[in-house]
Amino acid sequence: MEERLLKVRMQNFTYQNAVKIVFGKDSIAQLPELLPQNLKIMITYGGGSIKKNGVYDQVVKALKGFDFVEFGGIEANPQFETCMKAVEIIKKENVSFLLAVGGGSVLDGTKFIAAAVEYKGDAWDIPTGKVTVETALPLASIMTLPATGSEMNGNSVISRKEIGEKRAFASEFVYPKFSILDPVTTFSLPKRQTVNGIVDTFVHVCEQYMTYDVNTPLQDRQAEAILHTVIEEAPKVLKDPNDYDARANIMWSATHGLNLAISCGVVMDWSTHMIGHELTAAFGLDHGKSLAVIMPSVFRYKADKKGDKLVQYANRIWGITEGSKEEIIEKAVVKTVEFFESIGMKTKLSDYGIEVKDCKNIPAVFEKRGVVLGEHSDIKPQDVDKIIAMSA
Amino acid sequence: MEERLLKVRMQNFTYQNAVKIVFGKDSIAQLPELLPQNLKIMITYGGGSIKKNGVYDQVVKALKGFDFVEFGGIEANPQFETCMKAVEIIKKENVSFLLAVGGGSVLDGTKFIAAAVEYKGDAWDIPTGKVTVETALPLASIMTLPATGSEMNGNSVISRKEIGEKRAFASEFVYPKFSILDPVTTFSLPKRQTVNGIVDTFVHVCEQYMTYDVNTPLQDRQAEAILHTVIEEAPKVLKDPNDYDARANIMWSATHGLNLAISCGVVMDWSTHMIGHELTAAFGLDHGKSLAVIMPSVFRYKADKKGDKLVQYANRIWGITEGSKEEIIEKAVVKTVEFFESIGMKTKLSDYGIEVKDCKNIPAVFEKRGVVLGEHSDIKPQDVDKIIAMSA
Repeated sequence: MEERLLKVRMQNFTYQNAVKIVFGKDSIAQLPELLPQNLKIMITYGGGSIKKNGVYDQVVKALKGFDFVEFGGIEANPQFETCMKAVEIIKKENVSFLLAVGGGSVLDGTKFIAAAVEYKGDAWDIPTGKVTVETALPLASIMTLPATGSEMNGNSVISRKEIGEKRAFASEFVYPKFSILDPVTTFSLPKRQTVNGIVDTFVHVCEQYMTYDVNTPLQDRQAEAILHTVIEEAPKVLKDPNDYDARANIMWSATHGLNLAISCGVVMDWSTHMIGHELTAAFGLDHGKSLAVIMPSVFRYKADKKGDKLVQYANRIWGITEGSKEEIIEKAVVKTVEFFESIGMKTKLSDYGIEVKDCKNIPAVFEKRGVVLGEHSDIKPQDVDKIIAMSA
Repeated sequence: MEERLLKVRMQNFTYQNAVKIVFGKDSIAQLPELLPQNLKIMITYGGGSIKKNGVYDQVVKALKGFDFVEFGGIEANPQFETCMKAVEIIKKENVSFLLAVGGGSVLDGTKFIAAAVEYKGDAWDIPTGKVTVETALPLASIMTLPATGSEMNGNSVISRKEIGEKRAFASEFVYPKFSILDPVTTFSLPKRQTVNGIVDTFVHVCEQYMTYDVNTPLQDRQAEAILHTVIEEAPKVLKDPNDYDARANIMWSATHGLNLAISCGVVMDWSTHMIGHELTAAFGLDHGKSLAVIMPSVFRYKADKKGDKLVQYANRIWGITEGSKEEIIEKAVVKTVEFFESIGMKTKLSDYGIEVKDCKNIPAVFEKRGVVLGEHSDIKPQDVDKIIAMSA
């Protein structure tokens, strides 16, 4: 009997998420009450957009009287080398609290920095999973890009360009102490980042939802709540980037997309992310784009094992009820692709100038790491090859 | 222009909920790893059902090697006098950690005990709101009755029979450090408690949802996720009390019903609870029953102000789309009542032998406290009188 046909129970789980979320217009002004006293703070940020959109000024104003240093230049797909420069400054300046101001990349980089400062060995051991993080500097965030959910979890993804690697780690020690989310800070996001973030949120939910049923109807509907909201609110944000309500709903959806409440007791996938990370490592493809390219192919390739959930998704999210099971599933995948395309997200490798033949080394990466993907651990290197070919 | 017609934004909010949830079969065995070392523990419990259903034995087995005392006899609607006896013992025995084993009443009582131990004045000041709790003993729970959500919040309700009062308080200091939820412990619940708990969960969600729209589509759908799940799973639990999946889903729904995630940024009501508490204080009516009696009348009495949300509820939860707005709302209220009745919950005061004329003192209680109820603060004592009359 196939595994998916067995009667399976909700998995036992432990859930704890102590991040304090401070949400809404003008919430950056609450920073002084949230920060610990008498600590030297490092503000980390990215390429400088916070200096153009007024966020930097708000932060500096709120930090009056606090002792802080700055570390800018954390790039999209935060680089190991850049983060290690911050580690040096922290040690020299006796910094004891990190405040990430920016998007998921800045925060992910800051989480890695917080753990790397406290680790005696080669810090690349952390994202490669050679060691488990045992302590980290305390950190917090002012999140200005709804996407990764990093503001309410202990996850981080770090890249190392010179060896073409992009690796994820998770630790209870790198949850932000607090995260400030002011939707107004997202008004000035370029369309490209807005769309990448929307797709990232959508795919985060699907990674936790589109597997097989283990009797978790509440978690399923909580996941569907996020998908419905993203589908409804995304066009509003694109039509009017200054629509506070729509920006707020997209922002809160992104946080719930990966605060891991919807993953309680369920079986997760994450193969789209793992393959997507390799596309980013190899070609510099934006994270959101890599997901939009791969997820439809994963759905189609694993339609047998994911079939029941895909039908539920077709029915509840897209209102599709007519046709054979195979037809319903295909219609749901097409609807997903159409949604991505409707907000300006291209969904084929060829749209980004990437040819399948250029991806030939990717399956070998998983082979080398001894990693098998998917909720059934049945997506082997040769399957990764096929999924990439389907995404041409 | 009516307030509800104004364009209103999602409210700014702060959310933090650090309770560690340990969920699933046999999870009580994890107790030793969760408890702090070298503290004297007090186990609190209720009327002794935990000694019949095996939970007590599991706890005592897990506590081997820990230093603990016991305090039993916390009643449904935990009484101030009973709790104060525990306070005396704690002081005498130098207890420094409380472990509540049982339902919401045991945990609510334990939260009050934890705060009262640390308060120098008359502890009745705490539930009456005369003081704000500034510290409390650390506490945790093993929750065996899905209902109050107390396992994942800082709320407590305390009663004082001799003066006929039932009062609620909330504090960040009385969140459990952890809560263990093993659905198997709920198999032996009497039907009455199972049904009370289901209705309590349903009404908790409605108190946070059935108000007016402030542009919170995600929170709305998260609330509807719980309502859908409760409606689907309740009959299964009643049909087979040993159905693990259904018990687990009811239990997780109860936790989400009042972990306050769905109240982020929304406008809340709580008038059904406030009036219900007075029915319990006056007649000893079960909490769940008091809610089932009052909520339909609140919906009907405030159908003008709650109308848009009631129509959304009618449509999304009950699939009602035909008829005038008034007809749709009335159909939704009838469906709600039918759901309660279908699981064996009576919904009229007369079903419990209570006559409206016996409730004549209740509106005066709110008058005396200077409390006006409802999301618009427009349910005055004379409105409470009418709502009770509609519940005859």
